[in-house]
Formats: sequence, C-alpha cells, structure tokens
Amino acid sequence: MQNVITLTTDFGLSEYVAAMKGVILNINPDARIVDISHTISPQGIIEGAYVLYSTASYFPRAVHVGVVDPGVGTERIGLVLECENCYLVGPDNGLLIPCAIKMGLKRAFRISDQKYLLKEVTDTFHGRDIFAPVAAHISKGVSISEIGEEIEEYVELHLKHHVKHDDMLEGNIIFVDRFGNMITSLDKEIISECFDFGSLLKIELVNKDNRIKKEMNFLKSYGFGEKGELITTISSSGFFEIAVNQGSAKDTLGAKQGDLIRIKI
Amino acid sequence: MQNVITLTTDFGLSEYVAAMKGVILNINPDARIVDISHTISPQGIIEGAYVLYSTASYFPRAVHVGVVDPGVGTERIGLVLECENCYLVGPDNGLLIPCAIKMGLKRAFRISDQKYLLKEVTDTFHGRDIFAPVAAHISKGVSISEIGEEIEEYVELHLKHHVKHDDMLEGNIIFVDRFGNMITSLDKEIISECFDFGSLLKIELVNKDNRIKKEMNFLKSYGFGEKGELITTISSSGFFEIAVNQGSAKDTLGAKQGDLIRIKI
Amino acid sequence: MQNVITLTTDFGLSEYVAAMKGVILNINPDARIVDISHTISPQGIIEGAYVLYSTASYFPRAVHVGVVDPGVGTERIGLVLECENCYLVGPDNGLLIPCAIKMGLKRAFRISDQKYLLKEVTDTFHGRDIFAPVAAHISKGVSISEIGEEIEEYVELHLKHHVKHDDMLEGNIIFVDRFGNMITSLDKEIISECFDFGSLLKIELVNKDNRIKKEMNFLKSYGFGEKGELITTISSSGFFEIAVNQGSAKDTLGAKQGDLIRIKI
Repeated sequence: MQNVITLTTDFGLSEYVAAMKGVILNINPDARIVDISHTISPQGIIEGAYVLYSTASYFPRAVHVGVVDPGVGTERIGLVLECENCYLVGPDNGLLIPCAIKMGLKRAFRISDQKYLLKEVTDTFHGRDIFAPVAAHISKGVSISEIGEEIEEYVELHLKHHVKHDDMLEGNIIFVDRFGNMITSLDKEIISECFDFGSLLKIELVNKDNRIKKEMNFLKSYGFGEKGELITTISSSGFFEIAVNQGSAKDTLGAKQGDLIRIKI
Repeated sequence: MQNVITLTTDFGLSEYVAAMKGVILNINPDARIVDISHTISPQGIIEGAYVLYSTASYFPRAVHVGVVDPGVGTERIGLVLECENCYLVGPDNGLLIPCAIKMGLKRAFRISDQKYLLKEVTDTFHGRDIFAPVAAHISKGVSISEIGEEIEEYVELHLKHHVKHDDMLEGNIIFVDRFGNMITSLDKEIISECFDFGSLLKIELVNKDNRIKKEMNFLKSYGFGEKGELITTISSSGFFEIAVNQGSAKDTLGAKQGDLIRIKI
Repeated sequence: MQNVITLTTDFGLSEYVAAMKGVILNINPDARIVDISHTISPQGIIEGAYVLYSTASYFPRAVHVGVVDPGVGTERIGLVLECENCYLVGPDNGLLIPCAIKMGLKRAFRISDQKYLLKEVTDTFHGRDIFAPVAAHISKGVSISEIGEEIEEYVELHLKHHVKHDDMLEGNIIFVDRFGNMITSLDKEIISECFDFGSLLKIELVNKDNRIKKEMNFLKSYGFGEKGELITTISSSGFFEIAVNQGSAKDTLGAKQGDLIRIKI
C-alpha cells in the first residue's frame, strides 16, 4: 500500500493543483495527498529536481508526482519510475531523475495505456489529465507494467557537479530557498576534501551582469555566525550553501539561481 | 457520504483558512479538507467564481466552500446550493453561481438556523463562523432543509460573455493565472465559430491607462508556439486565453483582470 | 487520541514543510496534518505567536507544532507544553507561550530523549529533525514524560500589552494580515474601557522613519465603513485593529509590524 501521494509543481498553490487533487480523490478516495512544493519557479526543472531530491526520502512509501513541464503538449513522453520505496510520476525532462537515483531507481516506464488517463487529455495540462490519474491508479495497486512499457533511456539531470581546477573549485547556484539561502551544486564530499569548518573562504559569484567577490567563513551551522554575517555551511541535504545568519544571502549578494560560484582553494 | 470539503478563499494560505479547518474537524473529524485556492485577489468575486467553476467538476462528491466576501458584516445572506453531485456554501454575491450551474443546480437555500453555526458569530469572519460549520454539518449528512429555507432568487454572475459586432468580437480578461496566462470571458464555442486554429488574430487590449494592439497566432497549445511568442489558445476549461510559450503574457502585455479584449473578425 | 497535528512555521509552503510532513507520516501514518500558516515573516516570533494564539482554539484535540526559530543550532532548548486540550511543540523562544496560556497550560517539558528524534539531527533544521518526530510520537500516545523532563522556566512572551497615559493609550502593531489589516497589542478590554463604537479616534503611528497622524472611526465591523475608509474595529480574536473597508490599511498607511500606535483618550 502506498496511499501517500505527494505533489511538486510550478503551479502555485492554485486551482491547478486542486484539480489534480480532485482527480486523485475521484480514483482513490483513500489517497493521502501531501504538497511538497508548488512554488517552484515557472518551468524551473533544476529547482524542482532539487526539491524532490531533498525531500522524498523523508516520506514513507509513496507515489511522488512532479510537474514542471515546459514541454507539455509536445512530443516529450510521460514517465513512471519504480524505486526501492517509492514511485515517481511526471514528464521525461530530468525533473524526476536525481530523486529516483537517490531513492534506488529500479525500472523506468513510458506511460502509454490510455485507460489510466482522464478521458479527455488536453495539450496544456498533463498534470491533471495524465500524471494525477496515473499516480492515483498506482497508489491503488495497479501494476506499472499495465500503465506503460519499460524503457531504458530517459533525459538525465545531475544536481551535484563541480569542476576542480588547480587553484579553484567551481559550481553553480541550483536553488535559493525561502530564507534566501543559496544552495550550490557542490556536494559535501568535495567541499570537505578541500576545506575545513572554520576556514575563511574566498568566493566569487558570477553571472552575465555581475561579479561579486567576498570572503566568508565556513561554519558548522548558521547559528555560529554573527547576526547578519554572510557565511557558508553544509545544508541539511548535503549541499554547500551560502547563508546569512538571521538574514538573506540572496538579498545581501543579489545573486540568483544559475550563477557560477568559484571558491579559491 | 461527501467527506470531501474544499475551500476557495481570498485569505492566503493563512491562519484564517486554518481556523476554518479547525472548525470543520471539530464538527466532522473524518472530513477530508482540500484547498482549491486561497490566492484569489482580495475581494475578487469573478476570479473566485472562475476558480470554482473550472475546478469543482474534477472532484468526487464534495461540499465546496467559497469565501470571497466584501459584504461580510452587512445584510447579504449566506447560501447553500444543492447540485447534482456537490453542495456549494458561501455568500450570496455571485461567487458560487457559475460553478453551481455547471454542476447542475437543483435548489438554493438561505442559511438561517443558528444551531449549525459557531456559538459566537462575528461580523468580520463568516468563513469560520458560518460557512465552515455549515459545510461540516452537511458533510456529516445534516439535511440542508434543516439548515435554512429554500429561496428562488440570488445574485447572478456570468463568466462567459461576449459582444459580437460586425467586425469585432469583444469580451474581458476574467482571470490571470500563476503563469501569467490571461483567461478571457470568450468561450470556445464563439471563438471556434469565428476563427480556426492557425489563424493570425488582431487583438486589442484596453483599460483606462492603456491600449495595446498585437497580432497573435491562434494555436492548439502553448507548445506549438515559439519560445517567448505571444499566442492565443483555448484553456483547459474551454476559455479563450492569451499566453506566452515558456513565458508570461501578463508580464509581456502589462494587461490585467478586467481589461477589455477586442478581436478583429 | 489526537491525530490532528498542525504546523506553523516561517518556511513558506515549501519542501521544508513537506519534509516535516514526511517525517510525521513515517511515524504516525494516521496523522491528519493541517497547515496553520507557513507565511510567518522569516524569524517573526511575535507574528508566529499571534497566529498560534488566534487559531489553535478552533481545533479539536491536537498537537500544534510551531517553528519560528532564529536560535536553531545554538543552545536554546526544545519544548513540549501540555495544555487542557492540546500539546504544543517547538523552540523555547516565546513562540508557543501566548497560545499555551490561552489553551490552559498545565506542564512544560524540555525535549531530551534522543530516541524520539530523527537519527541524524542537523544544526539547521530542528523542525524536521526534532519537533516533527516528537509531535508524531505524542500524537501516537507516547507520554511526554518519556520524551523529556519537566521544567519550571521558559522564555516568556506577551502579545497583549498597553501603556495608559493620562491622555493617551499606547501599544504596537503586532501583525499585518493578508488583507493589510493591522492587528495591535491593544486588547478589547482596555479599548472598550476607553472608547465606544461610533467614536472618532485620533491615532498616531510611529516608527523610526515615519510619523502618521489620522482620525479614524471606531466601528463594529469593516462593513459599516465607507468603501476605502480607514477605520478601526475589534478583530475576530479580540485585538484592536486598523482596517480599510474593501482595501488595505497597510498600503494606505505604509505602517508595519512593530510600529508604535498611540490613541488620544
């Protein structure tokens, strides 16, 4: 049994999400629907992938639906991914992949059987017409081999990545959270290889409009910084992160998702 | 049984909504409460009506509560509407009507029996004090003829409307969604009577500050437009809509809810 | 049984909240989780305290979790408060206290037994690692004396306060709601001692940048004001409040949380 169904979208907590919930409850009245996030930036696949990746593991057995879907209405296929302790349902654009791999991806399926979809499938809203009903049927125990055929290839996406130069470690800002904390693509393994807690890091943030250079302490937690101090730490999901103790790194730096980050080694 | 209760308000996802949920769970601990939207613009009756109209039909048997209520604390009455497969509860200001008619309105009642309300009814918050408890009692099976008396008249509201001139079709922007898509009052019947997919439409948007003239393709789905192209399509609920593929029509045009739209025939 | 667990945080309705829900459902699959608010201003302890205070009493027996926690990762302790009809779980920074006292505080406990927490407790996210699992265990019936030891002292916080001078009543703006209504620290008792409904009040709002003087009617409800009129009233929770009928007092006055309010007697 996996009556828990989670939803991660870029729809805002709006009527679009509600229509998906209605569709789910129509098929599985016992579904326990949990919103993961609906505040993903419009069409922010990397953001959505990060959110699913960092959250799904806290859930019991569940069907996780992700809908950040710039390609809706085109040829891109719909996926169901079977993992150790969950299913993932959504578009084939990389959104589900980092989470699936973390959760023990076993098999990937392409959604193909029309009878598990809404009767009328629009070109604009597959979250409601395809992914919600498929998730609801899976949560009721329908086998995914009935819903589609197994596939070997899908669009890949990697959240954690870095380039290590002789004198510099390079990555990207992949997510800016509600508090203005900036999550980078640098993972705690490469960071702890290069730096110790307590070090003063020389950091550069670069985008097409700006180049910011700052020194920041690398601390075990926000709480060890002075109030208002720009610091770096390891996020609760294992990513290197720039933060301001009791403040917003985003507001302080004016940096944003996608910016390049360089740390002098 | 209709244990599903949905909520549509202009309260934000805030403590106001939570108080309504607490009241509902106090009366019916088995209620399954689903948020439709709480991001209706403050006092946006047409917006709220559109959201209820476009969403309720996806739900199983349910009690839908709508609270967008500029007249709270005045003489306006509270309604319960009995439809084919749902009940609607909220103020008598038109908010519930388009949805009720779509859902097969059978009878309308004026809420009058005090014993189904909170003991203390404030002048400022009927969502919590009147509509939430009434919905919870209905979801438990209390007959609506116990809750109030049947009425024949209520405030009307029509979402779909147009004026067809010799050379021009005229309507309004009734809703701007999370993606900046602009939903108009023009329905797919009148549009398909006048235009074919693939046509280039000459569109004018007018409000007291602005007059915007643009040519836009009329396409089957966003996905068929170029990235960033301003296009028109039919929304998933059957309304004519202006959109930007992978972008925001609202930001591109600077138009907003209430604006007049004119399309050259 | 208290299967209802509510959440009040400054996390936004984001993946942080979802992780807490996942943790809760992992421990108690029957938990009914209700969001009270996640739009508390970052680190807004007074705002969060007001929201809990004004909302919890509408719920049936429940465990209320509050996480507005600037001191996370430092020495501040975690609390469980046992009240007449609920439990409160969160940081020891005053957040839970006004609500606990209103709800009949019986005993306070310091969270200390590690076995009711997540296995890995981070320094940045006690909402997920400590407060969510503790709440879930309490909702399953674990005795709080197993979770921690009773304490006599905790950080205090008072929402309702005023200074009465010979010619003036003084307080603060403690909360600005979704509609721009401004809730003050002045309670209905002191207000009704000094003023009658129908009076014209001379009000001054003061912060470091601004000093605003206005005359406002004191009315029984928004609805009795003219459209757009700046008025004062008693909020549904018993606080003196500045509002604009069908508009935003916040936008009209440019005042904000923390501002001093003075009313001429």
